[in-house]
Amino acid sequence: MPEILLGEYLFLRLKHLGIETVFGVPGDFELALLDLIEPLGLSWVGAPNELVGAYAVDGYARLNGVGALVTTFGPGELSALCGLGGSYSEFVPVLHIVGYPTTPAQKSGKILHHRLGDGKFDHYQRISSELCCATTVLDDPTTVAAEIDRVLTAMMFHSKPGYIGISEDIAYAKMSREYLDAEITRFLPSSARESEALALAEIISQLESAKAPILIVDGGAARVSWADHADPLIQALKIPFLVTGLGKGIADETSPYYQGCYVGKGSGIFTEKLDHCTIIDLQRFSVKIGETKHDARINHVLPKLTSAFSSHPPLAQLPIEPFLEVNRSLTLPASNKIEHDWLWPRLSSYLRPGDLVITEIGTAQVGVTATRLPSGCNGWTQSVYGSRGYAAGAAAGAAIAAEEAGKSKRLVLVTGEGSLQLTVQAFSMLTRYGIVPVVFVLNNCGYTIERYFRGWNAKYNDVPMWDYTALFKASAPDVEPKVRGCKVTTAAELDELLSDEMFWDATVPQCVGMIMDPKDAPEAMRTAFGVKNACRLWLNIHYYAVIFYDSGQTKGLNFQEA
Amino acid sequence: MPEILLGEYLFLRLKHLGIETVFGVPGDFELALLDLIEPLGLSWVGAPNELVGAYAVDGYARLNGVGALVTTFGPGELSALCGLGGSYSEFVPVLHIVGYPTTPAQKSGKILHHRLGDGKFDHYQRISSELCCATTVLDDPTTVAAEIDRVLTAMMFHSKPGYIGISEDIAYAKMSREYLDAEITRFLPSSARESEALALAEIISQLESAKAPILIVDGGAARVSWADHADPLIQALKIPFLVTGLGKGIADETSPYYQGCYVGKGSGIFTEKLDHCTIIDLQRFSVKIGETKHDARINHVLPKLTSAFSSHPPLAQLPIEPFLEVNRSLTLPASNKIEHDWLWPRLSSYLRPGDLVITEIGTAQVGVTATRLPSGCNGWTQSVYGSRGYAAGAAAGAAIAAEEAGKSKRLVLVTGEGSLQLTVQAFSMLTRYGIVPVVFVLNNCGYTIERYFRGWNAKYNDVPMWDYTALFKASAPDVEPKVRGCKVTTAAELDELLSDEMFWDATVPQCVGMIMDPKDAPEAMRTAFGVKNACRLWLNIHYYAVIFYDSGQTKGLNFQEA
Repeated sequence: MPEILLGEYLFLRLKHLGIETVFGVPGDFELALLDLIEPLGLSWVGAPNELVGAYAVDGYARLNGVGALVTTFGPGELSALCGLGGSYSEFVPVLHIVGYPTTPAQKSGKILHHRLGDGKFDHYQRISSELCCATTVLDDPTTVAAEIDRVLTAMMFHSKPGYIGISEDIAYAKMSREYLDAEITRFLPSSARESEALALAEIISQLESAKAPILIVDGGAARVSWADHADPLIQALKIPFLVTGLGKGIADETSPYYQGCYVGKGSGIFTEKLDHCTIIDLQRFSVKIGETKHDARINHVLPKLTSAFSSHPPLAQLPIEPFLEVNRSLTLPASNKIEHDWLWPRLSSYLRPGDLVITEIGTAQVGVTATRLPSGCNGWTQSVYGSRGYAAGAAAGAAIAAEEAGKSKRLVLVTGEGSLQLTVQAFSMLTRYGIVPVVFVLNNCGYTIERYFRGWNAKYNDVPMWDYTALFKASAPDVEPKVRGCKVTTAAELDELLSDEMFWDATVPQCVGMIMDPKDAPEAMRTAFGVKNACRLWLNIHYYAVIFYDSGQTKGLNFQEA
Repeated sequence: MPEILLGEYLFLRLKHLGIETVFGVPGDFELALLDLIEPLGLSWVGAPNELVGAYAVDGYARLNGVGALVTTFGPGELSALCGLGGSYSEFVPVLHIVGYPTTPAQKSGKILHHRLGDGKFDHYQRISSELCCATTVLDDPTTVAAEIDRVLTAMMFHSKPGYIGISEDIAYAKMSREYLDAEITRFLPSSARESEALALAEIISQLESAKAPILIVDGGAARVSWADHADPLIQALKIPFLVTGLGKGIADETSPYYQGCYVGKGSGIFTEKLDHCTIIDLQRFSVKIGETKHDARINHVLPKLTSAFSSHPPLAQLPIEPFLEVNRSLTLPASNKIEHDWLWPRLSSYLRPGDLVITEIGTAQVGVTATRLPSGCNGWTQSVYGSRGYAAGAAAGAAIAAEEAGKSKRLVLVTGEGSLQLTVQAFSMLTRYGIVPVVFVLNNCGYTIERYFRGWNAKYNDVPMWDYTALFKASAPDVEPKVRGCKVTTAAELDELLSDEMFWDATVPQCVGMIMDPKDAPEAMRTAFGVKNACRLWLNIHYYAVIFYDSGQTKGLNFQEA
């Protein structure tokens, strides 16, 4: 009977799910495990630290559908948790593989490093069980295959992180190859066909009688293998659509049906509640039509919906007005400062079709809602979890996934200096693996979005001055051709740079440090917080996947750009 | 009745415990809380990210006796956990204050950012309860004082981290000032006086009949307010002593009784088990004499032990031989490379009395056991938990504590480039607050200690090339006088630099990038792993506080330097 190692089984299962690259930081407990990766045809991508690795694998998984991260028992795994929390919160399936001490060492209760000193080995698994849909620490070779498949299946089903602890002795124990023959699926299976058919019929009926249906594409749509269906559905329905902050980067914003980015009333907590209308809310595990919840799943309903409307006569609807860049003057600001009101619309014409645009939380996240993405762009921002520093790591992982998928897109990372200080080591991850990023660093001397919350002049909202372009270069001194960095302080300089073909078409990694006013902010943020900085919370985020909305009119909605 | 805010109560209690500086990273949920800090006479030190902040507060607490860190609910607190795990493992009392959403928001179950999306707010507290001796999330103004005192008391009693979640509305609720009158103690109280007296008598009796008593100073000794008693005890006993890796930096290594650094047999896991002898093991909560455990506590027994022996006739003992720098040639290596065998003894004469020496895990941690510290030096390495990247953050916090204590010591940080890549943002924390560090970066192109475990030439043990001196300068472009950095590639260059008075007496922060061979390692590490790299684990760490050891002879012990 042909045999394989248990560790090989784990990685072969990841291959079955579509993973080609494993991310992580090596540590002594899992070095032997790492030796198995490349011989199986997988790539290893080392991260400078676990948090950046966790953000990177999240970025990889958002594009690839699933990802895997390896860290070490104790300090290593704890350092990755914030990334896993974000993956949990935003429905990203990431497998966290943790190198454990050998099972004899665990059973003997020996003093080992990375331990908490109380003779117990289950603290860390319990911690991760709060942030994962399934966890296991493999200790019995006879059940390893079933345990691994259990965690992987739960991870793909729920689109949430999973956790597998594995020691060197378990990884090198042998098992039959036959276990590999069992099917494992990366796609969410259908729920009951009858209830899905019922939901579909009801949606069609509702849409046909709607006075003014609109469609809102939210972030959840990217996480259920649905992103590719967004544009076909819009083309089939021929109704106006909006994207949310989290849903930006999924649908084609050059579509004639595009109406802008929907950010609710721009104030209050999660105010995107849509009153006085019929909402058709398509979710991973349910479809809600008005108050009725159906046992149906978005990834099975949507393709059928597209088919049903592909040759359908026009729905009753509002006249479609072309998307207008309202109040978006592209003339340079009188101050010649890099002002937000000018910057974000200006970036629209810098971006090009197919760009991969990853945006950091904070002012950048709000600002980018005023940038119109060209066709075929992909991108996101971590809107719900809001973990500062996420974007730089995620960008590296996303670019690696894009490269693997044969969609070698230009990576554009837009981040702020306060956020970048959390994960600046990601700079070298952006350049180490052949990625050619363009990095824009909004340097406004502090946490500007926090200033809008509180502490307008507070010292705690300042961050120390760094030279970001020098840091970018110093993190890649041996990368050839040499990486480039420049600092721009005026709008005119930036405008010239953005129009420069050498910059536009660069084949070397580039970093642009932009000096901006600490008190300036994107229009949506200024509006949200009000003139007196009275508003406490502003967030353009929620958990919906896709919403059909029949309001009868759109003017009552506070559209960001429509 | 005079009133204060609950948030003020919290910070005033921290002042009672001796905290003068609060570390952290601001986030919207706790900005209002941060506004209370400086008006109370405390300082705020912002960290570039939560992990560096957690390492910094650990460093601060090791010198100051206790510390406090503020982070934000969710991503912020999760990012700090690895630092808290180290504090737990190595008995460092750190209070983790977490800014929570308002209690009405929590009770309403509203969608909020930083949440996991399931309507529950208790995930993060449960996570931290695995790494803290006490946790609370304050939600009832009437019990806040008692809850805060409960957590702080447990934290000081166990010398482990505590966790307090506090929202803005709770922080700004009012309470009577009278609660401040209750006593709160930072010191471990005595156990039963009778059993302590009994233990003391038995120790004295054992020592008086010992043939060749020796004393081993381990890391626990630093964590029970005992560090100051180490040298007086040694002077009173007049017996040879050794330090462990974790205990290094506590006792005066220029003492005639100093015999070197004890690292067990240099192989196997925690081999410092001492057989065939009577061990007197003084711990935080117990004193063990041979097999008998006494209900006594090191911090109460030790001062009395010093008194008892201060005018005692000499104990029977081995002839004290002067500490020899065996095999420690200070002549430059023939290769002119910066070899470990030369480097560490060479650093002995560079260091000066009173230096604060913080050493990173890995080769630096092992190598420094061969550096003899001048009198009055203080320092440590995170031996037990072994969290890569710890030292850079801890150094910043330790230097701040030293400055506060009026012991403005020169800070010497010795780190490796693989570790520094995890926490390089600490560079700016080292220079932002007026610290004048000297940073040595051992640049050997990867995780050398991991290579000794496994993967001698494995790609996963490589790290990307960075220019550390350029990074150091780029992280402090506006610090005056300008920070300096230099790269040295030969032993002769380094030798010259270490002898240069301009370098030695510098009043500006300096960083020395040292190019070293990826396969070279300190002697203790080469020995431990054996010529064929067969040995799996090597660690010079354990949990003992202080051991008196009567062997009859010392030659059988594998002393690192004796």
